[in-house]
Amino acid sequence: MKIAGQISIDDIPQIYPLLSRVVNPQYGESGTRVVEVAGVRFGGERPVVIAGPCAVESHEQTVGLAHAVKRAGADMLRGGAYKPRTSPHDFQGSGLEGLCILSVAREQTGLPIVTEVMDPRLVGEVAQVADMLQVGSRNMHNYTLLAEVGRAGKPILLKRGMSASLCEWLGAAEYIAKQGNLDIVLCERGIRGFPSGEYSRYVLDLNVIPAARMLTFLPIIVDPSHATGVSAMVEPASRAALEMGSHGLLIEVADFSLGEPKCDGLQAIDATTLARIVEFAYAHGVHVREHAHVA
Amino acid sequence: MKIAGQISIDDIPQIYPLLSRVVNPQYGESGTRVVEVAGVRFGGERPVVIAGPCAVESHEQTVGLAHAVKRAGADMLRGGAYKPRTSPHDFQGSGLEGLCILSVAREQTGLPIVTEVMDPRLVGEVAQVADMLQVGSRNMHNYTLLAEVGRAGKPILLKRGMSASLCEWLGAAEYIAKQGNLDIVLCERGIRGFPSGEYSRYVLDLNVIPAARMLTFLPIIVDPSHATGVSAMVEPASRAALEMGSHGLLIEVADFSLGEPKCDGLQAIDATTLARIVEFAYAHGVHVREHAHVA
Amino acid sequence: MKIAGQISIDDIPQIYPLLSRVVNPQYGESGTRVVEVAGVRFGGERPVVIAGPCAVESHEQTVGLAHAVKRAGADMLRGGAYKPRTSPHDFQGSGLEGLCILSVAREQTGLPIVTEVMDPRLVGEVAQVADMLQVGSRNMHNYTLLAEVGRAGKPILLKRGMSASLCEWLGAAEYIAKQGNLDIVLCERGIRGFPSGEYSRYVLDLNVIPAARMLTFLPIIVDPSHATGVSAMVEPASRAALEMGSHGLLIEVADFSLGEPKCDGLQAIDATTLARIVEFAYAHGVHVREHAHVA
Amino acid sequence: MKIAGQISIDDIPQIYPLLSRVVNPQYGESGTRVVEVAGVRFGGERPVVIAGPCAVESHEQTVGLAHAVKRAGADMLRGGAYKPRTSPHDFQGSGLEGLCILSVAREQTGLPIVTEVMDPRLVGEVAQVADMLQVGSRNMHNYTLLAEVGRAGKPILLKRGMSASLCEWLGAAEYIAKQGNLDIVLCERGIRGFPSGEYSRYVLDLNVIPAARMLTFLPIIVDPSHATGVSAMVEPASRAALEMGSHGLLIEVADFSLGEPKCDGLQAIDATTLARIVEFAYAHGVHVREHAHVA
Repeated sequence: MKIAGQISIDDIPQIYPLLSRVVNPQYGESGTRVVEVAGVRFGGERPVVIAGPCAVESHEQTVGLAHAVKRAGADMLRGGAYKPRTSPHDFQGSGLEGLCILSVAREQTGLPIVTEVMDPRLVGEVAQVADMLQVGSRNMHNYTLLAEVGRAGKPILLKRGMSASLCEWLGAAEYIAKQGNLDIVLCERGIRGFPSGEYSRYVLDLNVIPAARMLTFLPIIVDPSHATGVSAMVEPASRAALEMGSHGLLIEVADFSLGEPKCDGLQAIDATTLARIVEFAYAHGVHVREHAHVA
Repeated sequence: MKIAGQISIDDIPQIYPLLSRVVNPQYGESGTRVVEVAGVRFGGERPVVIAGPCAVESHEQTVGLAHAVKRAGADMLRGGAYKPRTSPHDFQGSGLEGLCILSVAREQTGLPIVTEVMDPRLVGEVAQVADMLQVGSRNMHNYTLLAEVGRAGKPILLKRGMSASLCEWLGAAEYIAKQGNLDIVLCERGIRGFPSGEYSRYVLDLNVIPAARMLTFLPIIVDPSHATGVSAMVEPASRAALEMGSHGLLIEVADFSLGEPKCDGLQAIDATTLARIVEFAYAHGVHVREHAHVA
Repeated sequence: MKIAGQISIDDIPQIYPLLSRVVNPQYGESGTRVVEVAGVRFGGERPVVIAGPCAVESHEQTVGLAHAVKRAGADMLRGGAYKPRTSPHDFQGSGLEGLCILSVAREQTGLPIVTEVMDPRLVGEVAQVADMLQVGSRNMHNYTLLAEVGRAGKPILLKRGMSASLCEWLGAAEYIAKQGNLDIVLCERGIRGFPSGEYSRYVLDLNVIPAARMLTFLPIIVDPSHATGVSAMVEPASRAALEMGSHGLLIEVADFSLGEPKCDGLQAIDATTLARIVEFAYAHGVHVREHAHVA
Repeated sequence: MKIAGQISIDDIPQIYPLLSRVVNPQYGESGTRVVEVAGVRFGGERPVVIAGPCAVESHEQTVGLAHAVKRAGADMLRGGAYKPRTSPHDFQGSGLEGLCILSVAREQTGLPIVTEVMDPRLVGEVAQVADMLQVGSRNMHNYTLLAEVGRAGKPILLKRGMSASLCEWLGAAEYIAKQGNLDIVLCERGIRGFPSGEYSRYVLDLNVIPAARMLTFLPIIVDPSHATGVSAMVEPASRAALEMGSHGLLIEVADFSLGEPKCDGLQAIDATTLARIVEFAYAHGVHVREHAHVA
């Protein structure tokens, strides 16, 4: 049957030639191109752990959490100043003020910052504060934004669209690469499937990790917070992701003594749990690198 | 089990209060708010048929097809000047030149034009030519773009994201409505599911038509071209959509005598088939309106 | 990437050679092999309408409904004596007693009967009463049962598994055909997808109708009751299915004056609605046959 | 919206009262009921590893593999004598002869045997040889078979249907339990989703592990062979499953020196890889039990 829009596996390297392992044999069968963010090395010697609040809500909340994240041993701080929400009537993030708070948090802790940008006109502004720009799941297909962040001179964290095929995801990354920026880290964050909502928020798709590593030399990390949507699942999912070959983790934490977070509190973990995950990540770094290569 | 991000059916009207039937009882249980585009009435007396090429490729191709679409009896012309493609190395549309061609096509045929805009910075430019702005499936979650088109003073065609829940879709429409623009037409275009790619491109989800009509007063149409991805299925899918309560159709046509279209030729139909669909749409207009209301 | 269990479209006719259009060119590009059940012709001159209760609950309920179904103009009576339920603690059907009631209903109305069989050891018993044996969605992959019903000397209604690919579905039909029984009618009844449960029970997959008709000469009908799970959607979904090329409908009705049905009352329609559907089916019979063929 | 067939989370314990943690508080919040199979303890001190060929093809192949599985340190032997295949024209297993070969393999190696039964009339026969009866994914909804195996006096390995909700899966287990047999081990084997076939055979759904452990006291294991369909992914997926809280693994192995296996060779691993997985499983046994409990 002839169906429009079908891509054969044989055409895939043509979709993303700049990032394809086959087209770029210098990376070999399993080599990863290290992406460095203010000294943090994605695809390097050990997995990277990024942690922080879902949204930047206040100076006290974010700076406090940054210190907790630092003490737990994580490498980078996350936190949304601009939040994509299902309804325009929900809290949309604290914007510029949030960026300033993130800046203070970095100054005080030394942790590099990754934060989401949604508006191509704000890329410059966000890039002045962020060490790494995040393109969220809902904007993975937003090619205008992808091209703009590709020109911003900063490494990019590219989350997978919630129903993106691997080919579409690599095509999205290629939009960034085409602007001359190969400093891209992929991030699996759960896909939409029939079980979504029965016992977890999304379906954590770990199979995509070795598959992506076979097809491209980019590093890939996992967001176990959104992929499960359940606090109690974040720690086992983090360990599972690392065993499957993930180069790192992106985790939401909260300080529950400050009250319920403004978004996604049910998937946030506390700093004690984070510290255990970091310990696992570091201890298993060598182990993961040795075993996760795909034949 | 407590899962982050779950929305109860009881909260849904809070997601889209401006567009919710319950919150706006003036539309009754099944009344539709008519959206008028240069005299074409979505949600009016009879279904609306929009047709045209996938992409504006040349003056000859588009103006020729516009005349054919007009002769077939359709109401409006579609055609992409800016094309979202999986790879940045694929044809990205003819841009400004494409907009000019669309303008000529309208002048010669009198057909109003709907065309896609992807960049919030180009909304003004596109709105100068288009009678109706299309937000494509890949940008349904692009809230920056939604707010921008909401301020453009033009009716909006909002395609459903390929894995968007109905709640997310109505939330996206609410981003437009919040800017003071209620002239929104929803467009179902197929969802991603396990059969995608086996025998059709997407899964045509007709159940969403009566469901959307129960929850909101906005008109809703169907794109049978993308929803099937198979030319031979477009005509039966068009009839099925109208019987399910669709207020109209968005169809891709091609002039195969000019050679293979640059994109999605396998889902394009010819003008003769289009004429049969238009005839069905008009003849069944009254019938559909009488029966498709949902108790 | 080499993946186990993948079937190429080129291998498909090898999965179901007895039922493949390509392997059996005598049916041409769009011819259907008529399956006759006590004078009712699936794939014949006009669509077939089967209706009746979800479960046979009592003599009064089923015989009463049989008369109502007859008066509404439907062709056959459905009704489950053996019910596959999610929990063993739910009502499992009335069994043998239910079969007797169905037998009486046929005697009084003259309507042929289709009823489900789940146990290969009961096929003979059920076949003594039923004019057509139904294999339900949950047993589509039950190859033991398929072979057994294939030897029963009765036409078979084979529902699609809720996540069966078209290839798997045709493979299941081939298990019946291999026993020498080609009197098989396929029945699409909704598939599992991410929207399941948000606004409908399953996703009505009408694209599979023309696709199945391209690949096999078997007739195919649609169950709009399970595919939507919402009474108000059953009538528009019935019309849509016929426009898409369905050879018939399988519909659940209830007599709400007797109280809430023991299962699936929310998807049952009343006899008045059924009569409108039957009228549509008959009036559009010629129309459907003329247009639904696939190029 | 009222939709038929929807089960509220509040009703779930009524679906499977015999197996529900809430209804049976003696197991506490995270206690597992150990299922013992000839000395092998599922849910016990350390994860269980079952390995063996997809299908029993010959004496040489199966007995040879049994010795290799034993040497690799695995606990039990798997191997299909009756094979559910998409087409009736494919190899259907070696049947009775296969059972005899499995019996010899056990005698020579001492490994207990798990093998699939598909026909309720053959349960007694298969139970004479098998130490544990497997109900396959395609028969998870086959309630006739479930009741029959529940009466066979043997522990049951119940694979998840490829699109079964957790509630449906637990309901299926309850059909076995209702016969007085609580010796049930659940087995996640990958679900159907949009990525199926692009880079893996199914989507490995690890989120279901902690979710199932929250709702029931039954042990649960993972089949990484079917869940990935790619040999190179089986080892990382095995480690990931154990980190997520799986009580064991069910793995397909092959002796490639004998030629290509008759089914699913692309997902089989060799004995050397199996030995590494077993080593991981044993070393991490304590670790997994300590961390995988869900708050």
